[in-house]
Amino acid sequence: MKDVRIIEIKESVFADNDRDADALRAELAGKGVFLLNLMSAPGSGKTTTLTRTIEALKDELRIGVMEADIDSDVDAKTIAATGVKAIQLHTGGMCHLDADMTRQGINALGVEDVDLAILENVGNLVCPAEFDTGASANVMILSVPEGHDKPLKYPLMFEVCEAVLINKIDVLPYFDFDMTQVEEHIHMRNPNAVIFPISAKTGEGIEAWANWLADKVRGARQNAIS
Amino acid sequence: MKDVRIIEIKESVFADNDRDADALRAELAGKGVFLLNLMSAPGSGKTTTLTRTIEALKDELRIGVMEADIDSDVDAKTIAATGVKAIQLHTGGMCHLDADMTRQGINALGVEDVDLAILENVGNLVCPAEFDTGASANVMILSVPEGHDKPLKYPLMFEVCEAVLINKIDVLPYFDFDMTQVEEHIHMRNPNAVIFPISAKTGEGIEAWANWLADKVRGARQNAIS
Repeated sequence: MKDVRIIEIKESVFADNDRDADALRAELAGKGVFLLNLMSAPGSGKTTTLTRTIEALKDELRIGVMEADIDSDVDAKTIAATGVKAIQLHTGGMCHLDADMTRQGINALGVEDVDLAILENVGNLVCPAEFDTGASANVMILSVPEGHDKPLKYPLMFEVCEAVLINKIDVLPYFDFDMTQVEEHIHMRNPNAVIFPISAKTGEGIEAWANWLADKVRGARQNAIS
Repeated sequence: MKDVRIIEIKESVFADNDRDADALRAELAGKGVFLLNLMSAPGSGKTTTLTRTIEALKDELRIGVMEADIDSDVDAKTIAATGVKAIQLHTGGMCHLDADMTRQGINALGVEDVDLAILENVGNLVCPAEFDTGASANVMILSVPEGHDKPLKYPLMFEVCEAVLINKIDVLPYFDFDMTQVEEHIHMRNPNAVIFPISAKTGEGIEAWANWLADKVRGARQNAIS
């Protein structure tokens, strides 16, 4: 293929909210609350994955969920139906959550009776990656239909996540999705990223992911006690 | 399902770039150049759809493409391989293009020999909808695996687009995607939106969409002459 011209267009709109994020993270660590920031593109299956994850963990852990969305409250209703504490955060058109918004969410949710707080971020592979929410861990979902080239195009999202769930593996036969290539692309962005192939629809692979998450939550609780 | 609490979190980061957009739109109209702003979530098939659209129209229209991406130049290479003029715009981490960035792109592309200029915006259903690029028309792609509920969750994107391409209809049998419901949801956001079910993979439905677009481009050329 012939070479193309590349024009750089740069602009900075990213506020420094690192201090707020660090303060929130330290506060939650002191309370033994593990905050998971779950990110993905629209339609990757965040809410269905959460429903499966809650089913796997709710007998052992006390879970609270913050569903961020620009509009609508369909996701929070779905999560509330699982029996765990759930609130909807409306971002008022905003494309991401920052640490201050997350703190407002945490205050509204209440974490005195929560071991695992989950923030379902706005469906977006760009902006949420730019803003540290104060989470204990960032995790993202990439779904098979989106294609294995996404780590090439949304580098920061893959860099900031310590685990990547590859969702919708039940439809692998119908898409040109190369699991070996996606793993290579993800590890190019983040050599330490843990990868979990899952199907939130069928439940395949959920156990391994839920065990990994539960270990993290237990570690946070242990650290707060000791 | 039980009711959930809704917390409103608002913040404004949207710059007013309407004047720049109107100026660019008027300038392009005077030259008889039609600028299409194509938007979608990551992995909806923008580049493949563009390749098919170019194949359908390149004998009749002179086409130039601006591929916006945070990183990488894979898409511009793919488009350049079709034989049309293509440049890559790197947004430097930015999640959308505004009118000023689009003007920089138009200047770099050069539209003296172009009837149809296409901006492939950053893969994102939120931010690109907020910023008028100065385009003659906004069009978006929603792909079947993303789900028919997306107009409920990303309202503005559906409001600002005059046509919606429903891509990946070849995998309809494998997803719980309701075509009747998605049309209702889209028309709730925008009663005038034209909907084209397509498969960029198989080529199904591309002709109807390409004809609609070509009519628009011919109209713009006619207006500039008269």
